[in-house]
Amino acid sequence: MKVVVVAETREHEHRVALVPELVARLVGAGLEVVVESGAGRHAMHADSAYEDAGARVVGADALDGADVVLSVQPLDPVRVAALRSGAITASFLPATEETDVVRAARDAGVTAFSVELVPRISRAQSMDALTSQALVAGYRGVLVAAERLPRFFPLSMTAAGTVPPAEVLVLGAGVAGLQAIATARRLGARVSAYDVRAAAAEETRSLGAQFVELDLPSLEGSGGYAREMTEDRAQQQRDLLAPYVSASDVLITTAAVPGRTAPLLVDRTAVEQMRTGSVVVDLAAETGGNVEGSVPGAELAVGPATLIGGRNVPSQLPVHASRLYAANLVNLVLLMTSDGKVTPDLADEIVDGACVTHDGAVRHEHVREALEGS
Amino acid sequence: MKVVVVAETREHEHRVALVPELVARLVGAGLEVVVESGAGRHAMHADSAYEDAGARVVGADALDGADVVLSVQPLDPVRVAALRSGAITASFLPATEETDVVRAARDAGVTAFSVELVPRISRAQSMDALTSQALVAGYRGVLVAAERLPRFFPLSMTAAGTVPPAEVLVLGAGVAGLQAIATARRLGARVSAYDVRAAAAEETRSLGAQFVELDLPSLEGSGGYAREMTEDRAQQQRDLLAPYVSASDVLITTAAVPGRTAPLLVDRTAVEQMRTGSVVVDLAAETGGNVEGSVPGAELAVGPATLIGGRNVPSQLPVHASRLYAANLVNLVLLMTSDGKVTPDLADEIVDGACVTHDGAVRHEHVREALEGS
Repeated sequence: MKVVVVAETREHEHRVALVPELVARLVGAGLEVVVESGAGRHAMHADSAYEDAGARVVGADALDGADVVLSVQPLDPVRVAALRSGAITASFLPATEETDVVRAARDAGVTAFSVELVPRISRAQSMDALTSQALVAGYRGVLVAAERLPRFFPLSMTAAGTVPPAEVLVLGAGVAGLQAIATARRLGARVSAYDVRAAAAEETRSLGAQFVELDLPSLEGSGGYAREMTEDRAQQQRDLLAPYVSASDVLITTAAVPGRTAPLLVDRTAVEQMRTGSVVVDLAAETGGNVEGSVPGAELAVGPATLIGGRNVPSQLPVHASRLYAANLVNLVLLMTSDGKVTPDLADEIVDGACVTHDGAVRHEHVREALEGS
Repeated sequence: MKVVVVAETREHEHRVALVPELVARLVGAGLEVVVESGAGRHAMHADSAYEDAGARVVGADALDGADVVLSVQPLDPVRVAALRSGAITASFLPATEETDVVRAARDAGVTAFSVELVPRISRAQSMDALTSQALVAGYRGVLVAAERLPRFFPLSMTAAGTVPPAEVLVLGAGVAGLQAIATARRLGARVSAYDVRAAAAEETRSLGAQFVELDLPSLEGSGGYAREMTEDRAQQQRDLLAPYVSASDVLITTAAVPGRTAPLLVDRTAVEQMRTGSVVVDLAAETGGNVEGSVPGAELAVGPATLIGGRNVPSQLPVHASRLYAANLVNLVLLMTSDGKVTPDLADEIVDGACVTHDGAVRHEHVREALEGS
């Protein structure tokens, strides 16, 4: 069967769905790998590297006769409509938002997988692209902040005196937050972190950071994510967090509730109370933002601070973001492969969870509702 | 006596010669501190912070009646000429290049100190601004490289596979180089370093980096700096370094010989052999560059790599670069202060070394030669 890797076309997308290093795993399972010319360009992989690894590189007709299509962003609906019935796609696919893509896949009889919907069970960890990309985003968020901060991150003891370490506050201690904590600690900063899930306290402390305890009840949700909260409680939380924000040199926010608008954690007034030259990186900017006024891809002056809104942050580290994402996809494809054929077994919890359309039908109730509403 | 801190006027200079935190040390020694309005702006210090610390903030007439003038960059010759005879200036002052400033100081009877000329003896360590600013540059060089690199610095072991650490090569293991090594190691990279001085090997290794041994004799110079070498030997060194360069993801060059053109360590062809997406930061770009083709303040594509030429790199971390520089200047001023008066004792080795003009004369032979030649 023919597995096709397309060149991404959406703006700011620099990742690629397969890297040369992993071509052999698909070929070894009896699959043919075809790569659209230039697909790896932004992720620093030349066409020749894919060829050397055993793939065939083709032009814009890459999708002709495709059995499985791998991409980072969802395929364009026009390209989906041109696939054969029974073809498989695997990519990021926010199914309740990308309703045109889902409709095209349904109508073409395409089996579309959304990596966001891979269930968070331990057998699926190696396919969990939300986790792998959050890891990249957390690292990258701290590096961007350190590059912008007019101060050292580490304590510096010099003949000209001692410079104290930077104070970094991380809000949201999920995968991205924990990686941000670890990176800021590596660079020598003093780090505090907060999460609505009390369970995050231990992980935070194990990385050498202080856990901020607010006088609010915990909000443990399912799958390791936080539940939403009432607006009253949210305001109370913002008020209690404000003094921690204003005492920081760097604030990194990473709080997300999957498929929902990100919670607003920080009011503009709290940012305005920060020290001159402080840096705020809002990694949740694309889903509404944790910080009032953040704009994806923009660097704004807010009082004495710089507020940076993340926009496709994993794509800013394209080599390794692609490497990890490609491994997630390869693991998902191989889960469904036997005897050189990719045949999804919908009785498998992972396949079932991640599958959005199959055999002309939309498979999840909440996606069907979104389609009717759009 | 009146110590005046001026607002810097040169482009890209964001430091300030005194920070509010250190005002009290001068005031405590019986000196009056006057700050030109806006002097601390880029270094994140408001006028009010200086006032709160015990300084007086004044307008453009700040130099009227000045006894001691502190600045980062040399004062403009016009401002020097307007000082009273016997007034003191202390700043960076590359005396053989800034001949207009030296001439103006000589003619006005000003006692001008160059912090570059503070001797490298242990009693003068706390006044050594070359060291304190090199420390900032080394840290900053690595951060800039890490922010540009499309890969992780640290080894990452994840459910989606293991990502190897970045390979960082540091050329020149003086203060800036050692700080670059330490910062890259903090971030988890695998680091190698090279220096013409064999003595650098031990310090390099103590930071967890590998020391590159080339089959060339050592070039130990005075004051911890390297001596210059012949062009033949330099080419041989570039040829021997090339394979180390091409095996690196990140190259940071820091090699400088004070008052001379920086040695060319890396040919363009070596950079062209690096991996796609590699990053080169040439911290010596302003003095001629260690890497062929580097331009101060520019980010250039050289084959598969990005070549970044440093330009006033310490100024890019203005808060702490200013903090350390200010401590250097305060220590120099206090060395010359007793009973509320700043009176340079030219019999002191430090004062003698750093003093460029005094009592209408240029004090160092090599500076006099430069004046005659210009």
